[in-house]
Amino acid sequence: MVLIDGKQTAADIRGEIAREVAALIDHKGEAPHLAAVLVGDDPASHTYVRNKEKACQETGMLSSIYKYPATIGEDELLKIIDFINNDDDIHGLIVQKPLPSHISDDRVTAAIRPSKDVDGFHPVNVGRMVLNLPAYLPATPAGILELIRRYHIETVGKECVILGRSNIVGAPLSVMLSKKGYPGNCTVTLCHSKTRNIGELTRRADILIAAMGQPGFVTGDMVKKDAVVIDVGMNRIVDETKVSAFKFTGDVRFDEVASKCSYITPVPGGVGPMTIVSLLLNTLKAYKKEIYPE
Amino acid sequence: MVLIDGKQTAADIRGEIAREVAALIDHKGEAPHLAAVLVGDDPASHTYVRNKEKACQETGMLSSIYKYPATIGEDELLKIIDFINNDDDIHGLIVQKPLPSHISDDRVTAAIRPSKDVDGFHPVNVGRMVLNLPAYLPATPAGILELIRRYHIETVGKECVILGRSNIVGAPLSVMLSKKGYPGNCTVTLCHSKTRNIGELTRRADILIAAMGQPGFVTGDMVKKDAVVIDVGMNRIVDETKVSAFKFTGDVRFDEVASKCSYITPVPGGVGPMTIVSLLLNTLKAYKKEIYPE
Repeated sequence: MVLIDGKQTAADIRGEIAREVAALIDHKGEAPHLAAVLVGDDPASHTYVRNKEKACQETGMLSSIYKYPATIGEDELLKIIDFINNDDDIHGLIVQKPLPSHISDDRVTAAIRPSKDVDGFHPVNVGRMVLNLPAYLPATPAGILELIRRYHIETVGKECVILGRSNIVGAPLSVMLSKKGYPGNCTVTLCHSKTRNIGELTRRADILIAAMGQPGFVTGDMVKKDAVVIDVGMNRIVDETKVSAFKFTGDVRFDEVASKCSYITPVPGGVGPMTIVSLLLNTLKAYKKEIYPE
Repeated sequence: MVLIDGKQTAADIRGEIAREVAALIDHKGEAPHLAAVLVGDDPASHTYVRNKEKACQETGMLSSIYKYPATIGEDELLKIIDFINNDDDIHGLIVQKPLPSHISDDRVTAAIRPSKDVDGFHPVNVGRMVLNLPAYLPATPAGILELIRRYHIETVGKECVILGRSNIVGAPLSVMLSKKGYPGNCTVTLCHSKTRNIGELTRRADILIAAMGQPGFVTGDMVKKDAVVIDVGMNRIVDETKVSAFKFTGDVRFDEVASKCSYITPVPGGVGPMTIVSLLLNTLKAYKKEIYPE
């Protein structure tokens, strides 16, 4: 069994990005620049944005955080997005979710210029991904593909079962892994809350990806011997070994499953660290105009 | 076994559309208007566009065909699309494919205003479909969903196996049938040329959809008893009973498979006639601004 070390892989990629950014700055005199819009006081959102800022700094990218109170109006927020869209010094733009309930997530996402949409959430980028056109891929699925690539895991003709049909992980990942190319060419089955006989399906999987957000859902008996298991779960549960503390746990019972696998990602330290790295890679692509040349 | 009569269903829907269009004209004094752009002399393309025009006429919609020689430049074609985009009297716009090789399909598709893209091929519409936002659905998958709806075929929790991952049928259909709602909530497996043990997979299917364009690929032993079989194949083969004649045949060996099924679509007369009807329904939605209200 090989433990897929997402933390180390992410660190390696950050090192590669840092070297490329340094060379780009030498050449063009300007660093890739990621702007994050942060609305309200949600502590988790503040942590995420701070981690993204830190990752930018580590790799020599510029980052700006635009902070607004939860009372900001949707129109005002859309104007700010428009302003950043038109700022040529900013290459990537993300708006941290969740937004206050009086603001439409969909309208905000659609307002981001597709060429700066480094989260890959804009309908144009999602559609281009489905249609095999160059697109920013959403960060978590892209991070999973990168782990598969870095660990040279074979995918062609493999049965891949994905648990969870969310817009940001399960659904796009099912499309991405079905496509021609590597990683891809899998025979993908997408499972969800209405799926029957789920254990029967997971036991067929050469590659099992758990992304439904149910702690410990995947038990030992649900996994085929020598399967590749990717755990996207990041469930915050009470840590009973400590007083008023939390810990993160995956959708997979690591202790039951790990010994049966050929490869497995731990939680934490598996898929999680790859997500921010994907965002950095997309920002680098934005800077280099790789996806939208004009 | 129930034979799904796409020809009759399509005729029924055209009748419904005609009644609605008549009422809309009474009310608004203006008919829904579909414009088709046709480039070059491909006989099949001319037939398709003529059939679309005929279906418009039958239902009281207006149709215009913009014909250009195969020598037209891409820039000129893009200008024409822009002109139609800005013509408020035209509600839906399709560009018949294939286009001459010096013109980019992707650039042309992206140039169509998403609110007039009644083929549902624009990346924005594909992305919106994936993200559960209102969108024009591509005609063939939408026609299949409509057949499932009209025949009250149960889909929730069913194992659905789709053969073929094309951009216009297999890939979008796999997303649509995985989603919440009806028809949907299926556990979908998307198969393609790299899939192994394909018979093993198809024999699990409660709903089997063949859309790979290989005449007679699905044999009797590949189908589970009481399965629903939807044949999207439309393969032109030589008709050996006639001199220099062709006939259309599906991806399914109807003679071997039909007796095992609970429902099956014939070819011709199954999915085929529903495609143009979906286009009319999208044009009606465009006229009523159902997808893009502003």
